[in-house]
Amino acid sequence: MATNRQWRLQARPKGMLAAGDLVLSEAPVAEVQEGQALAKVKYLSVDPTMRIWMATDSYMPAVGIGEVMRGAGLAEIVESKHAQYKKGDKIVGLTGLQEYVVIEAQSKFPFQKIPSIPFVSDTLFLGALGMTGLTAYFGMTEIGKPQKGETLAVSAAAGATGSIAGQIGKIHGCRVVGIAGTDEKCKWLTEELGFDAAVNYKHADWREKLAAATPNGIDIDFENVGGEVMAAVLERMNLHGRVVLCGLISGYNKEDPGQANLSLVLVKRLKVQGFIILDYASRFMDAATELGKWKMLGKLKDRQTIVEGIAKAPEAINMLFRGENIGKLVVKVS
Amino acid sequence: MATNRQWRLQARPKGMLAAGDLVLSEAPVAEVQEGQALAKVKYLSVDPTMRIWMATDSYMPAVGIGEVMRGAGLAEIVESKHAQYKKGDKIVGLTGLQEYVVIEAQSKFPFQKIPSIPFVSDTLFLGALGMTGLTAYFGMTEIGKPQKGETLAVSAAAGATGSIAGQIGKIHGCRVVGIAGTDEKCKWLTEELGFDAAVNYKHADWREKLAAATPNGIDIDFENVGGEVMAAVLERMNLHGRVVLCGLISGYNKEDPGQANLSLVLVKRLKVQGFIILDYASRFMDAATELGKWKMLGKLKDRQTIVEGIAKAPEAINMLFRGENIGKLVVKVS
Repeated sequence: MATNRQWRLQARPKGMLAAGDLVLSEAPVAEVQEGQALAKVKYLSVDPTMRIWMATDSYMPAVGIGEVMRGAGLAEIVESKHAQYKKGDKIVGLTGLQEYVVIEAQSKFPFQKIPSIPFVSDTLFLGALGMTGLTAYFGMTEIGKPQKGETLAVSAAAGATGSIAGQIGKIHGCRVVGIAGTDEKCKWLTEELGFDAAVNYKHADWREKLAAATPNGIDIDFENVGGEVMAAVLERMNLHGRVVLCGLISGYNKEDPGQANLSLVLVKRLKVQGFIILDYASRFMDAATELGKWKMLGKLKDRQTIVEGIAKAPEAINMLFRGENIGKLVVKVS
Repeated sequence: MATNRQWRLQARPKGMLAAGDLVLSEAPVAEVQEGQALAKVKYLSVDPTMRIWMATDSYMPAVGIGEVMRGAGLAEIVESKHAQYKKGDKIVGLTGLQEYVVIEAQSKFPFQKIPSIPFVSDTLFLGALGMTGLTAYFGMTEIGKPQKGETLAVSAAAGATGSIAGQIGKIHGCRVVGIAGTDEKCKWLTEELGFDAAVNYKHADWREKLAAATPNGIDIDFENVGGEVMAAVLERMNLHGRVVLCGLISGYNKEDPGQANLSLVLVKRLKVQGFIILDYASRFMDAATELGKWKMLGKLKDRQTIVEGIAKAPEAINMLFRGENIGKLVVKVS
C-alpha cells in the first residue's frame, strides 16, 4: 500500500512561515470506496491566499490545526470507482498539500477535468488557464472594465495573476504599467509581455518613475499588494477610476490589515471593489475558453517558476511572499 | 448704496474653525452691469464639504486666502439685467457666505430658479429637494442600489443627507438602521422618519446595539462619517455589500484622513464607491421631481436647524462638526 506524504497545519504562522508551522506527515493511501476515486498529485499551486487560509476564517474557513493544508493542485486519476472520472484523467482542484487525494462522490468544490493539448503544459491549467488566469480575467472584465486608451496599473505585475491581468489590459487597448520588485521582472514585463512600462518599487525613486510612466494618470488599478504600493497608485488615480481589489499580499504576513485612504476614494469618486474568484465559478468554462483563445493567438504569454519536490512546499510559500517567483509558482510533487 | 457683509477666508483651519479663520468684511454692493443680476441671500446652507474647501484642493479648488468663503445659498433677485432672471425670482446655488451675490451672464455653476409652492418652505430647496437630498438620492440609487428586504445602515443619520438616504431606503423596502450621536436624534429617526432602529454611537455598548439592530448583517452602508463608526459597520457587512462613500465627516478636522480595512473589502467582496453630487448635475431636475413626489406623498420628511444671522455662520459650521443640528442646518442671513 502506497504512502501519502501530507503537509499538515501545526501552528498558525506569525509573519513568514516558520519551521514547524507545517509538518510533513505520512499516512497510508486509503482504499478507494465505491463512488470515490484516487488521484496522484503532480503539481501544487502556490497562492497568496494560502496564507489567509492558515491564519483565519475568511471567504473559506481557516484550515484546522492538524488538518492537511488546503491548496490547489493538478492530479491524475490512478484508480476510480467514481462515475465521472476514469484512470488517466487529469484534474485540477483543491487537492491539498499532499501526494494523493481521495475524490468523494460529492464535493462542494468539485475537481475539473483538463484536456490534453499538444505542446501545452498541463500546468497551464494551474496558471494562465487556471485560477490565477481566471482571477485576472474576471477582475479585469467585471470590475476594471478596461476601455481603449485608459491606463492600467498592475501591482505584483510579474506574478501569476498580475502578469495575465496586464496582458488582458493590453488586449483591451490600455496603456499598461506594471509594478514589480526586481529589474529582471520589469524587463520580462516590458520585453516579453508587452507592458508599456514597468517600475521596480524597490528603487528609491520609484514613485517618480511611476508618475513618469503614467502621464495621463491611472484609470484602473489591478491591486494585488496593498500597503505603500497601493497608496502610491491611489495618488495617481484619475476621477472615476476603478480599483480591482484582488489581493493584499503585503499585508498577509502582518497583524495590521491593509488600509486605504478613503479621502482619495471620495474626492476622486473611485470604486474599490473586492472579489473572490469562486463567486464566478459558474462562468469558469466560458472564461477559460476566452483565455485559451488568446493564448493560442499569442496574445497571452505565461511563465512558471517550478520548485521541485513536495518537501519544499513551505519554502515555496515563503518564496512567494519574498517575491522570488516570476509568473506562476508551482511545486512539482515528485 | 447697500453694504455687503462677506465672510472671507483668512487662514486655513486646523481642527475646528477658530476665531479669525473666517473674517467678516464689508464691501459696497457693486452696481449691476449689463448681463448681470443682483440677488440678496436669504439662507446659507451649512455643509461638511465647506471644511474641505477651506483646507485643500479637492473636487473643487480650495478657497483662496482672502476670498469670499464658498457656500451654497438661497437668494432672491433684487435687480436684473440678466436674460434669465427677473426681480423676485428665487434661486439656489453657490452664493458664497455673503449678503449679496452678483450673478454673471455665464457661470460654471449656474444658479437654479426654484418654484414657489404653497405651504412649502423655500429652504426645502437647500435640503430635501436640494443638494443634500439629491446627494442621498444619487448615492442610494446609483451606488447603493437598495433591494427589498436588504438592510441599510446610515451614519450621521439625523443629518440632512443621512435622514433622506434612510427614508429612500424605506421607500425601497429596506430595513433601515440609523447611527447618530444623541438619543434625541435616534428618537426622531425611529418615531418620526420610520427608521427600523437607531443607535447612539456615544453609548459604550453601541456596537452590540448595532449588531442587535442588524440581525441579518448590513447590505448597504450609506457612509457619511468614516472612522470608528464606519469600521464597526464594515464588520457587519454582508458578502457583496455596497458602501456608498458620501462623506467622512469624522476626518475632515483631522490631519489623518479616513482609512478603511481593505481585508474586509476583499474577503467580503465589498464595493466601496465615492461620489460627488456635481457629477450628476445633468439629472438633477428628474431626481428633484422624484424627491418632490415622495415629499408630496408624505414618504419623505425633513427638518431644519436654523441659525439666525450671517454673523453666526462660522459658529454654525462648527455646530455641524459637533453634531448639534438635526436635519438640514441653515443660516438665516438676516
